[in-house]
This record gives sequence, C-alpha cells and structure tokens, in this order.
Amino acid sequence: MAPFRYLSFLTDYGLEDGFVAACHGVAARIAPDAGIIDVTHLIPPGDVRRGAAVLAQTVPYLPPAVHVAVVDPGVGTARRGVAVAAGESVFIGPDNGLLSWAVRAAGGAVRAFSLTNRAMWLDSVSATFHGRDIFMPVAAHLAADADLAAAGAEIEVADLVSLPVPERLVRDSIAEGEVLTVDRFGNIQLTITASDAAEIGAAPGGMILIRCGRHQLTVPYRDMFGAVGAGELVAYTDSAGLVAIAVNGGDAAERLGLPPGARVSIAAGPATIRP
Amino acid sequence: MAPFRYLSFLTDYGLEDGFVAACHGVAARIAPDAGIIDVTHLIPPGDVRRGAAVLAQTVPYLPPAVHVAVVDPGVGTARRGVAVAAGESVFIGPDNGLLSWAVRAAGGAVRAFSLTNRAMWLDSVSATFHGRDIFMPVAAHLAADADLAAAGAEIEVADLVSLPVPERLVRDSIAEGEVLTVDRFGNIQLTITASDAAEIGAAPGGMILIRCGRHQLTVPYRDMFGAVGAGELVAYTDSAGLVAIAVNGGDAAERLGLPPGARVSIAAGPATIRP
Amino acid sequence: MAPFRYLSFLTDYGLEDGFVAACHGVAARIAPDAGIIDVTHLIPPGDVRRGAAVLAQTVPYLPPAVHVAVVDPGVGTARRGVAVAAGESVFIGPDNGLLSWAVRAAGGAVRAFSLTNRAMWLDSVSATFHGRDIFMPVAAHLAADADLAAAGAEIEVADLVSLPVPERLVRDSIAEGEVLTVDRFGNIQLTITASDAAEIGAAPGGMILIRCGRHQLTVPYRDMFGAVGAGELVAYTDSAGLVAIAVNGGDAAERLGLPPGARVSIAAGPATIRP
Repeated sequence: MAPFRYLSFLTDYGLEDGFVAACHGVAARIAPDAGIIDVTHLIPPGDVRRGAAVLAQTVPYLPPAVHVAVVDPGVGTARRGVAVAAGESVFIGPDNGLLSWAVRAAGGAVRAFSLTNRAMWLDSVSATFHGRDIFMPVAAHLAADADLAAAGAEIEVADLVSLPVPERLVRDSIAEGEVLTVDRFGNIQLTITASDAAEIGAAPGGMILIRCGRHQLTVPYRDMFGAVGAGELVAYTDSAGLVAIAVNGGDAAERLGLPPGARVSIAAGPATIRP
Repeated sequence: MAPFRYLSFLTDYGLEDGFVAACHGVAARIAPDAGIIDVTHLIPPGDVRRGAAVLAQTVPYLPPAVHVAVVDPGVGTARRGVAVAAGESVFIGPDNGLLSWAVRAAGGAVRAFSLTNRAMWLDSVSATFHGRDIFMPVAAHLAADADLAAAGAEIEVADLVSLPVPERLVRDSIAEGEVLTVDRFGNIQLTITASDAAEIGAAPGGMILIRCGRHQLTVPYRDMFGAVGAGELVAYTDSAGLVAIAVNGGDAAERLGLPPGARVSIAAGPATIRP
Repeated sequence: MAPFRYLSFLTDYGLEDGFVAACHGVAARIAPDAGIIDVTHLIPPGDVRRGAAVLAQTVPYLPPAVHVAVVDPGVGTARRGVAVAAGESVFIGPDNGLLSWAVRAAGGAVRAFSLTNRAMWLDSVSATFHGRDIFMPVAAHLAADADLAAAGAEIEVADLVSLPVPERLVRDSIAEGEVLTVDRFGNIQLTITASDAAEIGAAPGGMILIRCGRHQLTVPYRDMFGAVGAGELVAYTDSAGLVAIAVNGGDAAERLGLPPGARVSIAAGPATIRP
C-alpha cells in the first residue's frame, strides 16, 4: 500500500503548452498507481494569492493526497522548495506563501522540509521548470513509497512563508473585508464569512448595505441567486461559506468593477427596502 | 464488481476555479475505483441547450456510466435534481431539460428518481454548488455500490422536463431546420440530418442552396472540407450525421454570422453551379 | 500485461466541445486499463508545426505510450494515417509531419504502418473526425493487445512525411535561427540551442545581442528570469535546452512582436553592457 493514492496539481502553466502533461508524465513514471486530480492550471501567471485562495477552497473536498502547487514567479532564485505535512496530506511547492492558506485550512503545518534531496529530483534540472524537475518528482516519490523526511532538511514550520490571512474585521455593526476572488461566473467572493454577517445582524431574507470606496448599494441577502429576478444583484452565502455578490444570470464583477483585493464593508440594511 | 466503472462529467463551471476539482475529489473519496471522463466544462454559463447538445452527441461514444451534467441556472430554486436510467447508463443532474436529448439518444428514460435521499449527499449542502454537494456524491455512490432506487422517490418519466427536440422539417423539396451548435473551428452544425438532405435530393458531389433570412448562398456539398479550396465554403455531413457548413481552413460561423438557433433551410442546387 | 499502459493525446480539438471526451470514451471501451495523458488540445486549429513542437518537447517526459496526435487540416483527403514505432513508443496520427519531430526526438522511426486495417477502426467512420473513428481506436487496440503490424500495410520509414527540421545555423560568431514557439507566459523560444550559444561565446552571466529584421537589442543572458528586475528583458536557457527570451513578470512576445517563424540571430555581447 503506497502512502498516498492521489496527487493533486495546481499551477499557472496554462493548457496550451505541454507543461502540465510533462509533469503528469514524470508522475506516471515514478508513481504509476497514483491518480492525479488537476485543481486548475489557469491561475493568472504569477498570481500567488489567487493560487492560494483556489487551493485552500478546493483541498477540503479532495482525498488525502500529496498536493503539488506551482505558482512561482521566483523560480530559479533563492526561494526554497518545501514539503509541508498538514492534516492527512502533504503540500509541495515553492515557499512563497502559495501553500499557506491551504495548510492553515488543513489544520496547520505539523512538519516541514526543504527539498534538498537531489536523489528525488529528475537527473537534469532546468532553471525555470521546477514543477517538472523537482516538485512533481518529489511528490510522486512521496506518493509511491518515500518517507516525507527523505525529501530534505527539516525546517521550522514557523519559518515557512505565509501570505497575510485575508483581512476581515467585525466592529460595531459593520463587517469589513475585501474581495477574495472572482469566479468564472463573475461572482464576487468577499473575505467576510456568513458568521460575520450574522454577527452584524445580516441574515438571508433581509437586505445588506455594501460599501466600496464612495459607492454604496443595498442588495437583497438571499439563500441563492435564483431568489431575485434575472439581471438583479444579490448577496448570498457561497459554497465556501463566504458572503458573495452575484447578478442572477449575469456578471457581478463586470457590473460593479470590483477586482480581487478591493476593500468592501457590509452592514445590515432595513428589511423593508427593495433596491 | 461495482455497478459502474465510469462517471462522465459535463458542466459550465469553467476551468479557472477549483469547482471541477472539488467534484472530482468528492467522487474520489466515495468511489475511488471509478474513472471520470470530463466531457467539457466550458458550456457557456447557464446555456442549458448547448449543454444538452454536447452531452447528446458525446454520450454515444462513452462507455456505460453515470453521466453527471450540471448547467443549472436555477440552482437553489424549486427545480429538482433527478437520476434517470436510460440504455446502459444513468443520467444525473438538474431536471431542467439538460439531460433530455442525451436520454432520448440513449433510447429514452426507463425509470427516474428525484434526488431526495440526503444520506447520499454531502453532510453539508450549499445553496449554490449542488454539483459538488448533491449530484456528484449521488453519482459516485451509484457508481460504487448503491441501487438507483436508493437515490430518492421514484417519479414518472413522463414528468421529466424535456427541451423541445431541435426543429427540422422536410416538405416539398426543402429541408428546414436551425443551427444546433457551432464548434471550436467555427463549423456550423444544422439540425438537418444527412438523411433529410438525401430525401430532398441533395447528395455529396452536388450543390446545395442554403437560405437564412434574406440571405441565400449556393455551396458545394462534399464528403469533407478538404474537397474545396482553402477559404471556400462547403457543406458536408459532420461526425454526428448532421449537415454542417464549414470554411476549409477558416471559420464559417464568423463568415456567415449564424448563431445557434438561427433558422436555416436547404434545397438541392443545380449540380453544375460552382460558387 | 498489455503492451502499453498509457496513451497520450494531443489535438487542436479545443475544450469547449465534446470531441476530446468522445475519443476518451472510445479508448475506455477498447482499453479500459490504459491511462490517458492529455498533452494539450489547444493547438491552434490546423497549426501542424505548433503541434509538432509541443509534442516533441513533451514526449521525452512521458512514459512509454501510444502517442496519438491529431492536427489534421487534410482530414478526409488522400493523406494517410500512420503508426510509427520509435524508441519505446508508438506514434499515431495523420502522415502530415505532425509526428516527425517527436519521432526524431525518440530516436527516429524504426517501423511504420499505414492504418489500413478497418477491423481496428470504429464500425462507422465519419469523413471529418478520424481522431474518434480511426486514430484513437487503433491506438487503444495497440495499447490493449494488438500487434503493431496488425494496424495495416507496412510502409518505408523514409516515405513518412517530415516537417523541415527547425532552422539553426552557427557561423562565425553568430547563431541564426527562428522563433520556435511562444508559451503561455509570452516567453519566446528560439530554435537556437544552449550549445549553439556556447559555441559563439555567449554564456549565462554575459550579454547577448539579438537581431531580428532591422531591430537589435542587447539583453542579459542569465540562468533564470528572476536574475533581472521585474519588467526587464532577459535571455536564458529554457526547460527544453533552447535559448529563450522573456520579460521577468511580463510577456516578451507582446513586447517584441516576435511570432513563431520569425528569423532571429544572436551574438555574444560585451560583458559589461547593461541594457
């Protein structure tokens, strides 16, 4: 019985080149019995924060695995590669914060290793494609048979690079946060949780006031977008448990012009107002 | 021996988020031995008709499977989720017509069930991501070991929502229909079959007259696009047995401005005309 | 033990239709135990040269497999389909040069067969979708149990269609070549190898002069893009061993306007110049 039956794989490599397939091939040679679940390969090039958010929201639904993530604008520089044990999984990638939110969601880092054992790499290592030459071969060896401690020198988990935890703050009757991600549908996911919303007295069925810069709007807070008419704005608790803003059948990000990182606050609105 | 070795999966989730992977992960946890064939995840958001067309044309080439399809603009509203037995397969998704053309192509619905058995769902169900929380877990349970009847309350197959069957009509010497789909290459697939074309006396080797609104054009009807010069229009029988219009080496949809749903009629043209 | 555990699959079919899935389904029916590694399906429609380049650079990292590649603007015309043994693998696709660079990288063609044995095709063959109806079923039969010689009539390997080998020439102190590919990141891969660069005295750490038409620029030649500041041009040896031009954190192809096929020459620059 191999230690891990699954690998997962998230990158910014895109799908038009053979980069992802080369990594799949490397894994197949080393760990032919491991299944690979592709998380996404369409993280915008170099967008570590976006990669971290998608990884953290997806991993809770994956089986225990060696999760490989590579969004690595610093490839070839001094940034180290790491393997981090958290929950029932191992996370492998550049130590640039990409893994940090998923590791946190998995219960926090238990042990961490710098990928210094060249015996687990490909024989020839390029300066620019560590996903193929280092991260995936190490992950496949761990999935097939290797002990995590064989990956390299143990390091302090406190020394791992972490992205700042997405900002959110509840004070008085206002929940403050920012846009965490925008998905394919143009739905705007805030860092504000459904619990935060409840704490300030906003509950599905009522209205909420959304402030962003000088803009302010009042939208219905509902259980689902289908509760408002086509083309109407709606706030709802999304599938990650976060407050999100959508246009039923439309693109809220386009409508509101709110990119990831934009600061947003919400308050409970008068229950009787309809926008 | 599990009831189904394969799942197939079609959605409008896109590939830039972790939505598809979360569903793969859910399936892997429940039915680790089932293979998943991704049909496509690039159905335009909410385009049920397009999803139905792609599913119906692809399923005949897939092995017997639990086919999961989710294009679900009504998620969270009263529309029910269903499991439908047809041919050697089971189809699972929202009861909004998405499954109907594929079920029909598989020989028609034999039994149908409303997905009411919460024991087969994830423990926690979001209002907006039933692919992850309901459809895929039910499908994976069916693939792994469950009896179809365990999915929920049996319903009348006659009560399933069906999309109108794509229009086509042969009268006098004219075949009328509409644009069914446009593929990546810009090839325009009509609802008119090769048999319809034969019935009105149009056969590969001759010419056909195509009418769309006030526009009319005469194009060669050939066995393949390569039979005309680069950049020339050609009609042919496509890989689904339907009459299609292409530009050899080009994009016919762009050239002719014919979107899905546009009404088109064809007639046999004089065999001697070259456009 | 089946002859091949893996299939690989490269096409220009795109991901928005069900074309790729139909081929996967055909393979699953014939060779259910074979894994499929998708190389890419986003080759620009009909771009045989681009397909050849991606295939040749990816296959060295894949396990021994039946590699199916379909970029086939001549589908349905007289061009034949072929199966070519090279290295530990078999390559299957249209005989239009698409396979030639990968076959060459695998050590050259050992035997070749024209796909004339209809018993290995689907029962019904369309004029336009040979990936589904001929190439993939033949490949799956070979992976499952068939002997390569059963695929059809043996042909002379010298008669296989080959793309011209990408041009490169070292003379005096100049290496001449062309743009081979541009990847997702906008990195410009030249046909000039790192060895060519060394031969003309250009080495990482120094500068190189790049000439393209009337344009000339001097850029640092480094081991990795991270060695220059954000937004700066840099030449480096890429993951395929070729000289490439990048913008650290940016898109070099957009900046320089150099498409595939553009002729480029490089020379060693004065070591002391900073651009």
